[in-house]
Amino acid sequence: MKSSNFTIATLKENPADADIASHQLLIRGGFIRKLATGLYNWLPMGQRVLNKVTRIVREEMDNSGAQEVLMPVVQPADLWRESGRWDKYDAGDLLKFTDRHDREFCFGPTHEEIITDIARNELKSHKQLPVNFYQIQTKFRDEIRPRFGLLRAREFLMKDAYSFHIEESCLQRTYDLMHDTYCRILDRLGLDYRPVLADTGAIGGNASMEFQVLAESGEDVIAFSTESDYAANIELAESLPPVKASFELLTMEEVATPDRKTIVDVAAFLQVEPTRTVKTLIVEGDDDDLVALILRGDHQLNPLKAEKITGVKSPLVMASDKAIKKATGANPGSLGPVNLPMRVIADRDAAALVNFICGANRDDYHFTNVNWDRDVPVFDTCDLRNVVEGDPSPDGKGQLKFRRGIEVGHIFQLHDVYSSKMNATVLNEEGKAVTMIMGCYGLGVTRLIAAIVEQHHDDKGIIWPLAIAPFQVTVIPINAHKSPQVQEVSEAIYTGLRAAGVEVLLDDREGVRPGAKFADAELMGIPHRLVVGDRGLENNHVEWVVRQSGKSVDLPLEEVVTRITQESA
Amino acid sequence: MKSSNFTIATLKENPADADIASHQLLIRGGFIRKLATGLYNWLPMGQRVLNKVTRIVREEMDNSGAQEVLMPVVQPADLWRESGRWDKYDAGDLLKFTDRHDREFCFGPTHEEIITDIARNELKSHKQLPVNFYQIQTKFRDEIRPRFGLLRAREFLMKDAYSFHIEESCLQRTYDLMHDTYCRILDRLGLDYRPVLADTGAIGGNASMEFQVLAESGEDVIAFSTESDYAANIELAESLPPVKASFELLTMEEVATPDRKTIVDVAAFLQVEPTRTVKTLIVEGDDDDLVALILRGDHQLNPLKAEKITGVKSPLVMASDKAIKKATGANPGSLGPVNLPMRVIADRDAAALVNFICGANRDDYHFTNVNWDRDVPVFDTCDLRNVVEGDPSPDGKGQLKFRRGIEVGHIFQLHDVYSSKMNATVLNEEGKAVTMIMGCYGLGVTRLIAAIVEQHHDDKGIIWPLAIAPFQVTVIPINAHKSPQVQEVSEAIYTGLRAAGVEVLLDDREGVRPGAKFADAELMGIPHRLVVGDRGLENNHVEWVVRQSGKSVDLPLEEVVTRITQESA
Repeated sequence: MKSSNFTIATLKENPADADIASHQLLIRGGFIRKLATGLYNWLPMGQRVLNKVTRIVREEMDNSGAQEVLMPVVQPADLWRESGRWDKYDAGDLLKFTDRHDREFCFGPTHEEIITDIARNELKSHKQLPVNFYQIQTKFRDEIRPRFGLLRAREFLMKDAYSFHIEESCLQRTYDLMHDTYCRILDRLGLDYRPVLADTGAIGGNASMEFQVLAESGEDVIAFSTESDYAANIELAESLPPVKASFELLTMEEVATPDRKTIVDVAAFLQVEPTRTVKTLIVEGDDDDLVALILRGDHQLNPLKAEKITGVKSPLVMASDKAIKKATGANPGSLGPVNLPMRVIADRDAAALVNFICGANRDDYHFTNVNWDRDVPVFDTCDLRNVVEGDPSPDGKGQLKFRRGIEVGHIFQLHDVYSSKMNATVLNEEGKAVTMIMGCYGLGVTRLIAAIVEQHHDDKGIIWPLAIAPFQVTVIPINAHKSPQVQEVSEAIYTGLRAAGVEVLLDDREGVRPGAKFADAELMGIPHRLVVGDRGLENNHVEWVVRQSGKSVDLPLEEVVTRITQESA
Repeated sequence: MKSSNFTIATLKENPADADIASHQLLIRGGFIRKLATGLYNWLPMGQRVLNKVTRIVREEMDNSGAQEVLMPVVQPADLWRESGRWDKYDAGDLLKFTDRHDREFCFGPTHEEIITDIARNELKSHKQLPVNFYQIQTKFRDEIRPRFGLLRAREFLMKDAYSFHIEESCLQRTYDLMHDTYCRILDRLGLDYRPVLADTGAIGGNASMEFQVLAESGEDVIAFSTESDYAANIELAESLPPVKASFELLTMEEVATPDRKTIVDVAAFLQVEPTRTVKTLIVEGDDDDLVALILRGDHQLNPLKAEKITGVKSPLVMASDKAIKKATGANPGSLGPVNLPMRVIADRDAAALVNFICGANRDDYHFTNVNWDRDVPVFDTCDLRNVVEGDPSPDGKGQLKFRRGIEVGHIFQLHDVYSSKMNATVLNEEGKAVTMIMGCYGLGVTRLIAAIVEQHHDDKGIIWPLAIAPFQVTVIPINAHKSPQVQEVSEAIYTGLRAAGVEVLLDDREGVRPGAKFADAELMGIPHRLVVGDRGLENNHVEWVVRQSGKSVDLPLEEVVTRITQESA
């Protein structure tokens, strides 16, 4: 391709609203453009990358034996009502609309309902199982706050797959196969990633695993073991019950703590560590009641863990100050589990404390030397908190450390969450109708591209892995308009490389200085750059610069095509 | 692929709501399934065809030098307001909705606004022109009456391209190039089609041409010349002015025509041919006035021709009976151009009549021997009618005959319809900002597949052209469960063909009789069928049946792979 026939749309400045490298560089490199909040155009340079990523995903899915299908973007409300998600799906993210005949539809954020409808209609017998259907299709999630460019866009391209089975073991095999397929895809894309245990979220089901690309800009925090291959999203990572130390129980006392409302203030005032205090969070229960969640002062509540507790409203809703005052007589800041007129649930670490400090349920007063059982006779104990670095790994091996990650894929064992509600059955070997069980497997195609850039860039721009670079090589002639020789050699290299199957961009833009072309080549992340100039040609040389290493080599003219073809394979 | 791992979803019965062959056979053959009105799922068998058609379209577009992009399905209202189409686009077809922040969007039925926005932002200089951007993207048109399966679906896949230029001659070259590219695509898809002159419709612009696939089920009527390559949609085909015969002008008389209101009734009552009469149609003008359109009694009004006349409201609106009565004193059925208190526009053929009959603008009366100029001194003459078979061809060569067609593609010279409204300029060679001019080029990808089936089927099912068949070959073992030899030979052929790069479906479904497998192979339209049975193997033969011709040949076993590989290329 010659840049005289190919639109290069690089920009000198970072867009004002772009905070992270992938967002900045994909726009500055001319790969994407913002159309509206969370909506992006793919420009020709970006579309080449997108096509390559799509091809790799399709190849590996086909190799896994999955069957490609295509389901409409527009989905009828009826099926979502059958599954129970029409009014429940991630509050507000589901974009609903009515057609000209006032029938209700949504713009699909995911396709469980549609594929389950297909499965119950087309699959009749156990002989047709297992199947794994996939598609590469546009999705829309009306995110309340789209951000980070492609990482949290509203419209995006996704590969989603759905498998159907009778036996658990068969589901497990496909789930494992998808795990391996995702690893192959991410390996081919040159990504450093970890499969981690994860929460199942709005999709539902039981087992689930996220594929997290490691990157400082990631929105997720992953907890790794220092001594095993345990890895989990901290949303999910379990905090193990600590060993309860045995201390003499001291006498509980009420002390005045005027104007001290935060853990830090109270601990400082009473001259103890925050680890000796507890905090009391009041949330709404399932039956218009209130529930108190007790955590050690230095720990953070994990809402996903809390909302899974029977009796606690899901999603989690914090009680209002007014409701708290009415129930306890005190304001937040002076609350505690002693004589609290509601159900009390203590995190395992809070429950292991002795002689601890908590609010007295009386404004500006706290209790010291509080002890469970003696002072709080009735309470439940649960895992309620986020793990912290240094916690023991839940598998018993080593300690937890944290890394940030970008979730690019997510695989689930849905079991019968959808198939039972939608009555998706087949006849088993005995001729009896049995409900199928399902797996589902998502991979964010456009998000992958942002994740690749997060891992593959430097201060000059993107550094595409060869397999997905828009072009493998760019040829930059120096002053071609003055030198017929430069022009001729550049054209010959261009033609030779193309004949050898290399994707090459000849940067023949008029009126753009060589320095600007070099900078563009670096910004756009083309793996190999060949610079053709009179000075080099005097010595029969072309300059070859490798984007990754920045290394420059003078290649003898006669070797250029062969060598660069090898390097581009 | 083995059918034990590939979902075959053939049906015995035609769906109740499917009237035409492509709709029936694509559903019965298990290629698509209706999700809701005008929305279709693509099942694995159909997706294979869709991927092949998409690949051919992409290859030819790339070969033409067009640059692939991808624009969001969801489009902001602002851009549609800029172009003036937000409230104007094909009444009701534009699906509008608001997001969670109450911002207005539509589900893109076409992408002129978005691409023009991209062009005005990214293209700065004449040096970047010409460019031709294309995408293969999902569209949605909220058709009031979706029908004929994929032919008039609401959600569909389309290839749309948009070119930008400064010079008319440059636009013409790209337009011609797209014409040739479309011909190559349709040739590769094995279609019998005609490029025909067409109206520009809601898209706007001047020159335009449709690519019509000839099929009885087509919704369009195409007028061809018997003696030249003239072809046009009858919406557009011009009716030439006839030679006005010279006759003696007779005296106009008013005659009573009690209760005769239609042309047929009046002509019969007065014992003349309808060709001697005119009909008078009253439509609304641009300025709340009325306009009379006069056609020969046997001719039909062409609304597209009428609404293009200055002063006539567009789209065309027939006047109400009440407005007609008020303006003329008469009811429809007794109207005529004599003394009519409004502007009169006569079709060329009506204007060539002498001594004709028309309503007297007095209920139950007509005039005979009416003559233009003498009896109707002021009137305009225009081409107002649909051409009819036997009309002279507008290019002066031969006569018109009609065929029906399916519009699969449409190319337009938009000129500056969008670019001037949206202020899309570049700097020309003198450094002056000039408005770009545009072409646009649509090709209905999913519609193409239906058109192919309309042309390639028989009473047994689809007959896919090799280039887009889901599989080129199906191998059907007879009683493989009883014959290890049949199973072994079938597997060997399957493996051999796959190794040779042939796409082959081994129909190893359990519990399905050979006859049903043969019928499915015919219904699904697989070009080659190989039947492996003990009887044939006794003579070292495999039966080879060609779907197109139905011919059956006994192939010696050792020749099977080589021969069928050749036939599948």
